[in-house]
Amino acid sequence: MSSDQLLAEFDAGKPAALARVVSIVENHRDGFERILSSLHSRTGRARRVGLTGPPGAGKSTITALLVKSFRDAGLRVGVLAVDPTSPFTGGALLGDRVRMESVALDPGVFIRSMATRGSLGGLAAATREVADVLDAFGFDRLLIETVGVGQSELDVARTADSTLLVLVPESGDSIQTLKAGVMEIADVFVVNKADRPGADRLRNDVELMLGLRKGVSFGRVPAHHGIELKRMNPARVARVAAVEENPSEWTPPVLSAVAVKQEGIDAIVAALDRHFAYLERSGTLRKRRRERMRERVRDVVAQKVGDRLWKDRGTMAWLEEQLASLEEGKATPFGVADRLLRDRAELVRGDQKT
Amino acid sequence: MSSDQLLAEFDAGKPAALARVVSIVENHRDGFERILSSLHSRTGRARRVGLTGPPGAGKSTITALLVKSFRDAGLRVGVLAVDPTSPFTGGALLGDRVRMESVALDPGVFIRSMATRGSLGGLAAATREVADVLDAFGFDRLLIETVGVGQSELDVARTADSTLLVLVPESGDSIQTLKAGVMEIADVFVVNKADRPGADRLRNDVELMLGLRKGVSFGRVPAHHGIELKRMNPARVARVAAVEENPSEWTPPVLSAVAVKQEGIDAIVAALDRHFAYLERSGTLRKRRRERMRERVRDVVAQKVGDRLWKDRGTMAWLEEQLASLEEGKATPFGVADRLLRDRAELVRGDQKT
Repeated sequence: MSSDQLLAEFDAGKPAALARVVSIVENHRDGFERILSSLHSRTGRARRVGLTGPPGAGKSTITALLVKSFRDAGLRVGVLAVDPTSPFTGGALLGDRVRMESVALDPGVFIRSMATRGSLGGLAAATREVADVLDAFGFDRLLIETVGVGQSELDVARTADSTLLVLVPESGDSIQTLKAGVMEIADVFVVNKADRPGADRLRNDVELMLGLRKGVSFGRVPAHHGIELKRMNPARVARVAAVEENPSEWTPPVLSAVAVKQEGIDAIVAALDRHFAYLERSGTLRKRRRERMRERVRDVVAQKVGDRLWKDRGTMAWLEEQLASLEEGKATPFGVADRLLRDRAELVRGDQKT
Repeated sequence: MSSDQLLAEFDAGKPAALARVVSIVENHRDGFERILSSLHSRTGRARRVGLTGPPGAGKSTITALLVKSFRDAGLRVGVLAVDPTSPFTGGALLGDRVRMESVALDPGVFIRSMATRGSLGGLAAATREVADVLDAFGFDRLLIETVGVGQSELDVARTADSTLLVLVPESGDSIQTLKAGVMEIADVFVVNKADRPGADRLRNDVELMLGLRKGVSFGRVPAHHGIELKRMNPARVARVAAVEENPSEWTPPVLSAVAVKQEGIDAIVAALDRHFAYLERSGTLRKRRRERMRERVRDVVAQKVGDRLWKDRGTMAWLEEQLASLEEGKATPFGVADRLLRDRAELVRGDQKT
């Protein structure tokens, strides 16, 4: 099938064309640039929701329930699972596997695992590209599930319009196992398994953190905030919590859920709707999407430079020649990189015909 | 202090100079390139050992015990903790915190947390750079601890000479929670908490996996290998396991440990020594280090291109101008990237004086 035919079938909403386009884009096969470029003007309709949290928090169960809820409302849903422990990626044999499969049979739902993607392509870049494809195809909601531990996974979560952070009371350290920075990007907190001991304490901890976050501006929550909180002057905590609420500001709600009993999902959906309304009203949506666009351009630039240099046989042969001097300590990676960029600027410049 | 003075004190083995050099390199402060370049010829002495595994597997306890064992043998040890849940990074308040602190007071040990590093710099690139500094300073062993879940973290583990994968029987799914690809890079497996139920089964599972790995060549272990194993023809498994052992090949040992009781550490140290001897004998060490050097050059090239473009005001202003057309769908990220690279090749080429 020609690229034009494929795009025509994609435009006509054919599921097989969607699957093929996603594969081409995901693996950067021939023509992926042309495809993404031609879809570009149609992106921006879907709401992108990131779900993150520690392994075992129940992200996948909540994802499945959100899919169901969106489907009941007549919305089409794409799911991108970046979490290797997600049942969506085949990573675990949980009790709700059957439910996942029933979801997977619905033509209004598209599920793609990004978990086994190789290490060379940026995971966040790849996820953004596949999300663009699903957006252009007409999915109304995109759910992007990532484990809240790794750095790339945090970058993936940053690509969403709204980010849901799922925590569980079981491990008292569950907040602390998260990658530094995860707490700051969450727009909605969900304490899952809220019927278990420790749920109230976890909720309190999170609310205290949020009070801190609202009033005090610091770059990142220290990984050892558990200690910091204890050390803080209670009067200061109270003062911080009393900062008056700005209507153009978003106060992340801390919701409770028992996903396995399907409890708390409606409140999550409502919070996501409220958050999206806030994003639009405050201009934050535009800002976030602008930032996403900036990142897209940077991603593409980095990818193009990499492709142009490292897929060039002459450059690779030259690099191999340098390795001996590098190993003997006669040359340094910085010197080699400088020479490479100086002598191969034409390669980086690319085909003048473009 | 001038850069020359700092390097002189670094060469004299002053701990304060080491700490300052690490900070400069880690944050890419002015002069970091010159420092790394001047240290380059002195790297390559340290053995780099990566420790990875799921959260809660006991990686940090094993790291602390390895530090102790290496110290007892008169070796100096650097620790790079990339795992946010590691007590080395202040991420958790475990019972062995005191032991960590006693380790931290030893001048023959240097501990650095890389866990809170921002998202912009590549985590693997940053870790390689700090590891080079410690190597040049004269540390004999470098222990690099990462959680085996994230993509960047897997990339970090790939920078080591030997990789230790720590698993625990507690979660029967512990293998499955790992990032695809982690199983393949492990040189030594450790079943920690081996006195708990399920340890034998886990060991069997891993050994079966290794039998598979040795005989059958596939790109990656599928995330759902738990199912695959059950589906496999037993005759084929036996045939695969019977593949004759090649003396120039490494068969990863599957060791048992109860780290909290300090059991099994000597066997781990011995396995690491055996593995290093194999690396040298087989030429694999040279191959791995050569690959690491290639990666270093690629990292530096990517970094330089990024710095030259995105720290340039004119380029950033131009990009801002393009955002409106990008948002309206009149331009695409690929088109913008092509124009940017075509028109700004001189910037990428860099300062001709270098």
